[in-house]
Amino acid sequence: MTCSAELLCVGNELLIGKTANTNATWLARRISSLGGSLNRVTTIGDDLREIRESTRIILARKPDFLITSGGLGPTFDDVTIKGLSQALRRRLKINKEALDQIRARYKEVFASRYFALTKFRAKMAAFPVGAKPLLNPVGTAPGMALRVGKTLIVCLPGVPSELRAIFSRHVAPIIKLKAGTGGYVSRSVSVRGIFESELAPLIDRVMKRYPEVYVKSHPRGGEGRAKSHIEMDFSYSGHDMEKGRQVVSDAIAQMMRHLSGRARVAEKQSA
Amino acid sequence: MTCSAELLCVGNELLIGKTANTNATWLARRISSLGGSLNRVTTIGDDLREIRESTRIILARKPDFLITSGGLGPTFDDVTIKGLSQALRRRLKINKEALDQIRARYKEVFASRYFALTKFRAKMAAFPVGAKPLLNPVGTAPGMALRVGKTLIVCLPGVPSELRAIFSRHVAPIIKLKAGTGGYVSRSVSVRGIFESELAPLIDRVMKRYPEVYVKSHPRGGEGRAKSHIEMDFSYSGHDMEKGRQVVSDAIAQMMRHLSGRARVAEKQSA
Repeated sequence: MTCSAELLCVGNELLIGKTANTNATWLARRISSLGGSLNRVTTIGDDLREIRESTRIILARKPDFLITSGGLGPTFDDVTIKGLSQALRRRLKINKEALDQIRARYKEVFASRYFALTKFRAKMAAFPVGAKPLLNPVGTAPGMALRVGKTLIVCLPGVPSELRAIFSRHVAPIIKLKAGTGGYVSRSVSVRGIFESELAPLIDRVMKRYPEVYVKSHPRGGEGRAKSHIEMDFSYSGHDMEKGRQVVSDAIAQMMRHLSGRARVAEKQSA
Repeated sequence: MTCSAELLCVGNELLIGKTANTNATWLARRISSLGGSLNRVTTIGDDLREIRESTRIILARKPDFLITSGGLGPTFDDVTIKGLSQALRRRLKINKEALDQIRARYKEVFASRYFALTKFRAKMAAFPVGAKPLLNPVGTAPGMALRVGKTLIVCLPGVPSELRAIFSRHVAPIIKLKAGTGGYVSRSVSVRGIFESELAPLIDRVMKRYPEVYVKSHPRGGEGRAKSHIEMDFSYSGHDMEKGRQVVSDAIAQMMRHLSGRARVAEKQSA
């Protein structure tokens, strides 16, 4: 089985470069390591129309998962759920279970404080009809899950600790199950003293012989400079991990033979 | 004048979380500081069909700039320019000026080495008809610029030092010119001892009074925890920088009055 995913990251701070999108990097790594395949990351601002239209475009591609980050909080510009509900043409309704979670959270943090259900707090519990809240163990705004056709939509808060906690607890197990026994093997080799354009035909030959191995080269440190090198990633993704490790290893060995005497293999590491 | 931009970041390494998309963060910050407005970042893999279709979708939105990163090198999976040419239905042709730049670069780095124009090197000079190369001062693959309707398409290499050098030299001046005198003012205030849901109505009041100021809150460190605080960004983007600084300052002063006695203002910093 395969398991495809798209991310929709919402937040003006990402578009002005104030905040690096570490959530996307973290989710990408986690999804890959669970055997899933992340196909695309779309990053937009806190804009209702953008959220609505991006959601529609993504759902039309029918990924197994659409995971959103950001825009679940109590302030005026947290509009991810509203944009989503407009894209789906489902009305928003206070979700009782979500409201119970929010109330419990406030009581837990400030035991003595009276909980007033302001419109700003109620907002965090307003979900499209049919959605389920995902308990947030480290913050206030619950996550949300909603199945639409073959796609499971999952909305996560933008605060990294909260996003990670909810993903690990509620989403990772489903991706793992859906991806079946699939996985990802990757090893990197770093070479010096060769141009990427000289490496290109060698990569072609290795990939022709080992079609299951994907070889990607990354020039580092500025081509032709003293500290420059090229990092080559040899990767396999599929369902036979033992075979994966073997073909990756064989492909690296062939590349080493091609490079023999033509470049310095600076280091070799497993990832 | 306004100046809108979209980024299309190409690279499998971004989708498996091997590499953080620092290019997107850097470009976002630069575009904002030049007075431009980045509306969206789309990140996809080294996939011809994805590049072609994403390019079409972005061009249909008619941004002033479409900036791509990655996929300009000599290897089989560097297919950004090819995908772009398919989206535009323009054929690829060896660009003489680009080829001269590539040849000069190889001669400069390895003065004694004979320059063979392999297909892997020629690939880096194959541009859609009508495109112009952008000299890469720190690497081999030239950037590319091509006007299509009102959109200027700019293709940059994925190696950060090369992307930054080409952007700063060739693209930044055009964005600055197009954005006119527009700019961006932002100041941050950090508060403790208050829930974001209590802050939300205060933000609403401040923004109603100062509609030109955008106030965004970011919970940090886990809500309700000992080290937790909420960072509030007060920003203005427009053409009257003096007025921008004034309204941001006034909006912060009003917020301080609202918060007086209700929260601890932990720090106050300018950005």
